[in-house]
Amino acid sequence: MEKIKIVIAGPRGRMGTEAVQLVESTEHFELVGVIDRIHDGELFAGKDNVKIFTDPEKCFIETNPDVLIDLTTPESGKIHTKLAIEHGVRPVVGTTGFSEEDLDELSQLAEEKGIGAIIAPNFALGAVLMMKFAKMAAKYFQDVEIIEMHHDQKLDAPSGTGVKTAEMISEIRKPKKQGHPNETETLSGARGADFQGIRIHSVRLPGLIAHQEVIFGGDGQTLKIRHDSYNRTSFMSGVKLSVETVMKLDILVYGLENIIE
Amino acid sequence: MEKIKIVIAGPRGRMGTEAVQLVESTEHFELVGVIDRIHDGELFAGKDNVKIFTDPEKCFIETNPDVLIDLTTPESGKIHTKLAIEHGVRPVVGTTGFSEEDLDELSQLAEEKGIGAIIAPNFALGAVLMMKFAKMAAKYFQDVEIIEMHHDQKLDAPSGTGVKTAEMISEIRKPKKQGHPNETETLSGARGADFQGIRIHSVRLPGLIAHQEVIFGGDGQTLKIRHDSYNRTSFMSGVKLSVETVMKLDILVYGLENIIE
Amino acid sequence: MEKIKIVIAGPRGRMGTEAVQLVESTEHFELVGVIDRIHDGELFAGKDNVKIFTDPEKCFIETNPDVLIDLTTPESGKIHTKLAIEHGVRPVVGTTGFSEEDLDELSQLAEEKGIGAIIAPNFALGAVLMMKFAKMAAKYFQDVEIIEMHHDQKLDAPSGTGVKTAEMISEIRKPKKQGHPNETETLSGARGADFQGIRIHSVRLPGLIAHQEVIFGGDGQTLKIRHDSYNRTSFMSGVKLSVETVMKLDILVYGLENIIE
Amino acid sequence: MEKIKIVIAGPRGRMGTEAVQLVESTEHFELVGVIDRIHDGELFAGKDNVKIFTDPEKCFIETNPDVLIDLTTPESGKIHTKLAIEHGVRPVVGTTGFSEEDLDELSQLAEEKGIGAIIAPNFALGAVLMMKFAKMAAKYFQDVEIIEMHHDQKLDAPSGTGVKTAEMISEIRKPKKQGHPNETETLSGARGADFQGIRIHSVRLPGLIAHQEVIFGGDGQTLKIRHDSYNRTSFMSGVKLSVETVMKLDILVYGLENIIE
Repeated sequence: MEKIKIVIAGPRGRMGTEAVQLVESTEHFELVGVIDRIHDGELFAGKDNVKIFTDPEKCFIETNPDVLIDLTTPESGKIHTKLAIEHGVRPVVGTTGFSEEDLDELSQLAEEKGIGAIIAPNFALGAVLMMKFAKMAAKYFQDVEIIEMHHDQKLDAPSGTGVKTAEMISEIRKPKKQGHPNETETLSGARGADFQGIRIHSVRLPGLIAHQEVIFGGDGQTLKIRHDSYNRTSFMSGVKLSVETVMKLDILVYGLENIIE
Repeated sequence: MEKIKIVIAGPRGRMGTEAVQLVESTEHFELVGVIDRIHDGELFAGKDNVKIFTDPEKCFIETNPDVLIDLTTPESGKIHTKLAIEHGVRPVVGTTGFSEEDLDELSQLAEEKGIGAIIAPNFALGAVLMMKFAKMAAKYFQDVEIIEMHHDQKLDAPSGTGVKTAEMISEIRKPKKQGHPNETETLSGARGADFQGIRIHSVRLPGLIAHQEVIFGGDGQTLKIRHDSYNRTSFMSGVKLSVETVMKLDILVYGLENIIE
Repeated sequence: MEKIKIVIAGPRGRMGTEAVQLVESTEHFELVGVIDRIHDGELFAGKDNVKIFTDPEKCFIETNPDVLIDLTTPESGKIHTKLAIEHGVRPVVGTTGFSEEDLDELSQLAEEKGIGAIIAPNFALGAVLMMKFAKMAAKYFQDVEIIEMHHDQKLDAPSGTGVKTAEMISEIRKPKKQGHPNETETLSGARGADFQGIRIHSVRLPGLIAHQEVIFGGDGQTLKIRHDSYNRTSFMSGVKLSVETVMKLDILVYGLENIIE
Repeated sequence: MEKIKIVIAGPRGRMGTEAVQLVESTEHFELVGVIDRIHDGELFAGKDNVKIFTDPEKCFIETNPDVLIDLTTPESGKIHTKLAIEHGVRPVVGTTGFSEEDLDELSQLAEEKGIGAIIAPNFALGAVLMMKFAKMAAKYFQDVEIIEMHHDQKLDAPSGTGVKTAEMISEIRKPKKQGHPNETETLSGARGADFQGIRIHSVRLPGLIAHQEVIFGGDGQTLKIRHDSYNRTSFMSGVKLSVETVMKLDILVYGLENIIE
């Protein structure tokens, strides 16, 4: 099997560092260059065959990669993604912040060039499966609550994944105000946040990392789907799957849930 | 909407009693007769329009039902199912014990008659979704263990659902011996039962009813799918879905997982 | 071992029915009479030696019991308890609604008579242990959240047990506002109810019965205590323990947690 | 409040590194020296007032500490502990491998000197509380199973904590063979390991760290105690508590569970 030639943008960030390790430890992946803001022209981390580029176009032309893994900022991510497609390089992008217009433009560009592209706000395969399963279960169980649990340094509640899960469920679920019609809170907030009738509860405790339970209830039974994320390596299996999948695509796909069957 | 006319076989059993209640409490369902071993010709539970039949053929001819819900024994179940299809009645069957040959014969019969039939060993929607999701997740997570938990009056371990889940996962999962290659049990049995490399653990405690967790592990994350069955009413949503679905089918389907999308 | 002679008040109620069964199936317990509002003088449930009394005093004098198990209403419960102690019968009382003054008066009466008495708003041993353990853990973990989960027919949130648990924790726990000081709710209620800085989350779903998790968080670890109540029989082990314990007491004890070591 | 003067033995190990950070970040703790095998006489990690000693006696004489935190090997640990007590320094020791004779000798020595000493094989407060609670619950619930879950690089099953928990429960629990008397395993090992009638199940999956559930079952209810250890910092609250407690003791205590109330 021929190796997939890969360029990584943002190789010194927290995600980027993991991505470098992923590429180097995967038999059929090959790191051929990195895109960074400094150290143009130097060797990356002392590796003989891997040069640092501050100019993405120069990088694409010189290294001729199959795939760009971009783990930079929203601003740089957009620029890199567009340039990559224009140069026939398939992007796998982990930054958020793409607007509908951005996605439309990039989709059209990918189609013209006839190459695949994957943009995913969440690369944790387990979290993406949890959301996909929750959406499927919502067809059969109308009653559902979400409990998301994070360390107590998190500023916002509910979490992005919690709201995203509720949104995906709402696409399928017949609308319903849950709980007893006459239920009352003797302590305000007990019943959690209300997202279109779905209750979301946010637990914040030291020690916790990132966890979520989606609980469906029906006659005489409950179905629970839970994801626990213990550290950043949890994102790497999703990046790997995306690199492998993007090679077979000829369109842009947004969201890991759409490349999972 | 026209009502679906239903006959129930085994109306006095534990499942049958629930099924009677389900049909009576569902707007678009109508109970038109019951099949039982005794009390031929009498009214069922004092209901004006519902007669008891000991002869299934006579019942089908006289009441002209759309659907037969059969919750009897394997022996009776097979006979009833065949007779139902022959009379153009769509069977929804909750008994186990059908052989491959039985299913082949009944499938062919259903096809000839151009009517739907559903045979399901497990009507608990949540349990069926759990198994379906587990099979899907196995494509992305090779490592998985099953913990099934039941009351301490259960005789066999692992449970049927536990083994069935492992079988469904095995259809997809790349074979792998899990755990450390050199792991040792200092107390025999600690690592559970081995089903093609998948570990199954059976907990038996008073108080418990019927519960199962399927836990997938990957780099830095775990994904858990859990079903809790608290009482027999948990089967009724699956029966209801089957009755509604069998009206749109023109083939025999085995297993609730195959009518769930 | 001599049998403990028992009178049950409220023998036809949901709890009372279970209590009758408990007494009859326990080797060293003996049912010697029941107190009910009707059928004075008749045999109870066709039992040869068990008479129904509408007058509690007459019952105590005639049957000379060791223990009264009272599972009636708050009003009757108070009257029965006082009369029992006055007649030297040790009460085990499962009704709520006793005021501080009631308890003081009954305590004094028990002390004068030199006999034990147990009044417990919750007889589920597992729930009482959960609360006791939570209180103990609060000495070492300052951060804690409570998730209580009930069927969706429950009217009030949080549950009585949820609030009682928070109260017991608060007796020990150093006050602390949990979560990040600058945390914000993008959906109101996400962070749950606030009881002296402890967050309580109330989940309501069909299928659920009565469940509660108390989660403590600390550096790099969490400790979770969970109780699941599946049906009313869960109260009977607490009633049994109380009957056995009340025979050895010479004071009134309020709350099962205070007879558990 | 006067600061507690502390010497750490093994300051470069994984636990030792955390301990250094603990001491430095705690207001009323002061690091006055470290014991290591190399770099005698140099400053520790560039800290002005903290010298490295290869000779423990010289360290104790020169720095006159209140407490020794020892996180070295069993061999060194024993020597350091004895020397510490002899010099009036209170040891807090996290190494295992002390024999009954070792403990007897050290206990006597501590008593003679009239100073406290704490030796603990497990400093994770949450794990110790879990075991303590399990032992308490065993008085009221005879039926219990243990599920311990670890990463798949662990070699032995069941885990030390799993067996230790079963041992502590067995000290209290009335012996009982659990499960149905006639239960059979259709797949060998399904019912887990048998420790005096208590079943222990060992789950091994990538992604997991160190987790354990103790589940008690009774009539109509279950009680679950679960500890999750996410990283090594989970040991530090136990070390902190031990340092604070050892200052008030005048005997040797083995096991953190014995200083917890």
